Amino acid sequence: MPSVQAGPEIERLIQLLSKLPGLGPRSARRAALALLKKREQLLEPLGTAMRDAAAAIKTCEVCGNLDTSSPCSLCNDPRRDAHVLCVVEDVADLWALERASVFRGKYHVLGGALSALDGITPEKLNMAPLIARVRDGVEEVILAMNATVEGQTTAHYLMDALAASTVKVTRLAHGVPVGGELDYLDEGTLSHAFKARRSL
Amino acid sequence: MPSVQAGPEIERLIQLLSKLPGLGPRSARRAALALLKKREQLLEPLGTAMRDAAAAIKTCEVCGNLDTSSPCSLCNDPRRDAHVLCVVEDVADLWALERASVFRGKYHVLGGALSALDGITPEKLNMAPLIARVRDGVEEVILAMNATVEGQTTAHYLMDALAASTVKVTRLAHGVPVGGELDYLDEGTLSHAFKARRSL
Repeated sequence: MPSVQAGPEIERLIQLLSKLPGLGPRSARRAALALLKKREQLLEPLGTAMRDAAAAIKTCEVCGNLDTSSPCSLCNDPRRDAHVLCVVEDVADLWALERASVFRGKYHVLGGALSALDGITPEKLNMAPLIARVRDGVEEVILAMNATVEGQTTAHYLMDALAASTVKVTRLAHGVPVGGELDYLDEGTLSHAFKARRSL
Repeated sequence: MPSVQAGPEIERLIQLLSKLPGLGPRSARRAALALLKKREQLLEPLGTAMRDAAAAIKTCEVCGNLDTSSPCSLCNDPRRDAHVLCVVEDVADLWALERASVFRGKYHVLGGALSALDGITPEKLNMAPLIARVRDGVEEVILAMNATVEGQTTAHYLMDALAASTVKVTRLAHGVPVGGELDYLDEGTLSHAFKARRSL
């Protein structure tokens, strides 16, 4: 049953919008309507922005980041320390770390995490180029995977894969997030925070 | 400060996506990334769907609905009763009523509700054509405004404007929504539901 009475063009727009993360069928309808009501201010500029982005954005052949150039601007930046490599699952994680401005080395984007359930094997991730990069003078690899089962499986796999080399492998600290209330934290986080407590 | 490190094309895409209802800055980033990662399956089809919709969709000159033709398919449908007119604030409300399949007459979309705060005066709404349509053989006008202050103000204004004509003016019933729990309902709704109680 069509959800609206306004022709296949709107149906198709709603259907595609509902595939975006964060938009369900109902909010995709609202978004489509907002687009159609603001044609000059929103629908046409967004269409143009999508075409521009599709034409301009490439996947960096070195690290897997998305940028207008390949190698990307982070790989090309001579001020960034090429001896430290931060491995992340996704470009979104790279963006999050860049927003926090905590890291001045280079990145490596895996493009996902190992998952037997979803059939994500090491071959499907950007892993072999990572091993090759590590051989090329890297001193430290920071495994910045998500603290999920898949992320930690991936981190363990990489730790094993890198064990043969002399590179130092580290991971992000677990603990109480800033602003977090103990009452709402899970046992795993509290246990990590306790074990890794620091003297003041 | 730019939120990502990947060129103005992505910034612009995120900025425009964040203007959609239901998407904030953070979810717009996630959506942009999803689009860029699924270029063939999502980004390009969505751009095409937007161009198609922008080219095909018109505002119906009779009722204010959005459709590929003007007059729209609802206005053109001879099976719909032209003697009953359902007045709604927005195209989304028309879609909602059509999904419920409760109404087989014609619609009139105001394009908003009266709001002194937002400067929405009767002249800014699709009201004068409604009065003209009512003169043209309509027997009943159903005021299906939202149950908000603005919606009810608009309904009162229309009731006054239509008082001079002989048309029957009705409004939707207020009451307990299906699936609603009394404990969570406001006093206004409960009061309406009580006063309009029906014998079994």
